[in-house]
Amino acid sequence: MHTPMQRLTNGDVTTPQGFRAAGARAGIKPSGKPDLAVLVSDRPCAWTGVFTTNRVHAYNVARHRRLLAAGQPLQAVLVSSGNANVATGAQGAADTDELAALTAAALGLPADQVGVAQTGVIGVPLPMPRIRPAIAPLCAAASTTGGAAAAEAICTTDTRLKQAAVELDWGGTTVRIGAMAKGAGMIHPNMATLLCFVTTDAAVAPAVLQAALQAAVADTLNCISIDGDQSTSDTCLLLAHGQSGAAPLESVDDPRWSDFVAGLTAVLDPLAAWIAGDGEGATKLLQVLVTGALDAAEARLAARAVAASNLFKCAVAGGDPNWGRIACAAGYSGAQLDPARLGVRLNGVPLLQAGEPLPFEAAAVSASMAAEVVTVEVDLGVGAASGHAYGCDLTTEYVRFNAEYTT
Amino acid sequence: MHTPMQRLTNGDVTTPQGFRAAGARAGIKPSGKPDLAVLVSDRPCAWTGVFTTNRVHAYNVARHRRLLAAGQPLQAVLVSSGNANVATGAQGAADTDELAALTAAALGLPADQVGVAQTGVIGVPLPMPRIRPAIAPLCAAASTTGGAAAAEAICTTDTRLKQAAVELDWGGTTVRIGAMAKGAGMIHPNMATLLCFVTTDAAVAPAVLQAALQAAVADTLNCISIDGDQSTSDTCLLLAHGQSGAAPLESVDDPRWSDFVAGLTAVLDPLAAWIAGDGEGATKLLQVLVTGALDAAEARLAARAVAASNLFKCAVAGGDPNWGRIACAAGYSGAQLDPARLGVRLNGVPLLQAGEPLPFEAAAVSASMAAEVVTVEVDLGVGAASGHAYGCDLTTEYVRFNAEYTT
Repeated sequence: MHTPMQRLTNGDVTTPQGFRAAGARAGIKPSGKPDLAVLVSDRPCAWTGVFTTNRVHAYNVARHRRLLAAGQPLQAVLVSSGNANVATGAQGAADTDELAALTAAALGLPADQVGVAQTGVIGVPLPMPRIRPAIAPLCAAASTTGGAAAAEAICTTDTRLKQAAVELDWGGTTVRIGAMAKGAGMIHPNMATLLCFVTTDAAVAPAVLQAALQAAVADTLNCISIDGDQSTSDTCLLLAHGQSGAAPLESVDDPRWSDFVAGLTAVLDPLAAWIAGDGEGATKLLQVLVTGALDAAEARLAARAVAASNLFKCAVAGGDPNWGRIACAAGYSGAQLDPARLGVRLNGVPLLQAGEPLPFEAAAVSASMAAEVVTVEVDLGVGAASGHAYGCDLTTEYVRFNAEYTT
Repeated sequence: MHTPMQRLTNGDVTTPQGFRAAGARAGIKPSGKPDLAVLVSDRPCAWTGVFTTNRVHAYNVARHRRLLAAGQPLQAVLVSSGNANVATGAQGAADTDELAALTAAALGLPADQVGVAQTGVIGVPLPMPRIRPAIAPLCAAASTTGGAAAAEAICTTDTRLKQAAVELDWGGTTVRIGAMAKGAGMIHPNMATLLCFVTTDAAVAPAVLQAALQAAVADTLNCISIDGDQSTSDTCLLLAHGQSGAAPLESVDDPRWSDFVAGLTAVLDPLAAWIAGDGEGATKLLQVLVTGALDAAEARLAARAVAASNLFKCAVAGGDPNWGRIACAAGYSGAQLDPARLGVRLNGVPLLQAGEPLPFEAAAVSASMAAEVVTVEVDLGVGAASGHAYGCDLTTEYVRFNAEYTT
């Protein structure tokens, strides 16, 4: 059984019932742009999260993991941009705890029901004197139309907002999933950070919530590569409170399970593509589809290697149909492949087939690479599984941006 | 017992007794630069090799592995630059076999005692009509003073020759080790390729030879990262024929074992540093030393991650003492570390100590990064092992060079 799913135009993190949000300018960013956001639920949420696996990570990542393990519900998240509060020692940890306490006080919640996420420059203490007085007014401003303001305030050098929402029909009851994300930008060129917050008014048991988020993220946010540098702050939270009134989803054997994962995926997939195409200095979105793999994980491994290859990303920037770099990256990805069956297509044109290079119109393929989206298809020739990855071109602008003296 | 070792000025691959070499222009490179080299031994050599682990690799890599497994001695190697002969299908394999046969005929050897290595553009058939007639004159020209000519002919966009040799005193008998390498350049911007050929007039049993080369490469050639793209052609061969007359080294328990590894390492270490500093578009050599690791492999893992971080490499290009990117890369390397004990020094200046950021003169550290060598030290804080890596900065020139339309 598949329930209808509808993608909502202009949907955001407050599209599901019972979620409010707001954004504000606290003065963390020297530019004066919005840099503080809050997401508030009307009621305690079951929640889950996936986080960076970097051993050097934000204190707030460790704090989220601790709250998750304790089984606490979550009812609000304070997000700031412009300062990652990473490698700031004991003071940095105390600052994060204080931010949670201040937000909790403003909302009348226990501090352990408030998440905190941060992104930006690392190794620099948070400007707490500027943030403290901004929290109560921010929380008071949270509204059901504040999704876009919050999505703007979590951005750093993102050039566009990243929001999406879908609607599911669960036996006559409408259930919604909404999300906002920030991509791989740096307030001061420092490190790519990915933050994503997903809300739903479906009622979902915590274990099912975790399995669903992992399944959806594996095929979306985890398929992105901007520069191969995994950040200290990557965080994706999913909050569910059941206000839709639909019967709780309590098992992966429930026929609605696959629809819920499909809904989550439908919300996260455009965010992933937008984040990749909006990478530092990027001018093009690179879509890599791998087929003929032994399993989905191997397909994703090969796709990510191609999307992350510096050499091929330079070729994409320059419109060079240099398919050898695609075959090379698939080769070192670790995925099983058969060189005698390997196939490569670039923007639909077959360049390598069953291990033999094909003649092709280089000028025409090069011209096709001027589009905003460049598509690569690789057939590994050893199985029936497929997977994809999103990347971007590597430009001189990326290097210039990240070479600037800023410390 | 340690025997004296002496580094030889102007040493090369023909420094050990009984090896001859030559270089020539066959017309593989459109530039007309030397592109064909031969290395010939006076007698059959025990030999070994280490190769790319890329599943898409040159046919010549597979051929070398097959000859090694068959236990064949090797007496000559033909090396060409300008065309990698990779992903050229069945014709490419036949061409490599024909090159081995032609070289063997010119030297009066069995074809299975001739190695073939190639580097350059991939997916393009070799220009066999130009190469065939060049082989016999090349072989006839091989001489004991031809090392530099051969080293030049194996280069692609390398800006300097990479050669070294050392001399060991084994109980009054002089034993020599020589080597030449090419680095991470592309004839047409295509893929980084590393070729290295090591000769010695020591007599060394094959199993000992293999163990020695693996030990020395782990600490030298395998510590290099230019752009994270592992080539299809990486090959390092070690040939030993015993012409020095020194007693054979037949066991790792022989007291000369560690001296032989030290000699190999002394020959390969400067080549590794030169290759890194001579990377595409590179203006600086990046030296990363990791201490406080659980074991040497983990130390190398962390050092390579820092040396390969696009973000930190951009910072090196711009002279930005952005130590957060160093800590971040160590964090995602996979090596165990203790964030509360983590330490980072840049060009000798401590920036992070026991997890706490230190105040430092940013302008002075930035100024120090204008030197040709930038040194990073990372203390993981969990053990006593150390390891290092060589890298280079990531410049706009790298991107421009590899974005050029060339196919």
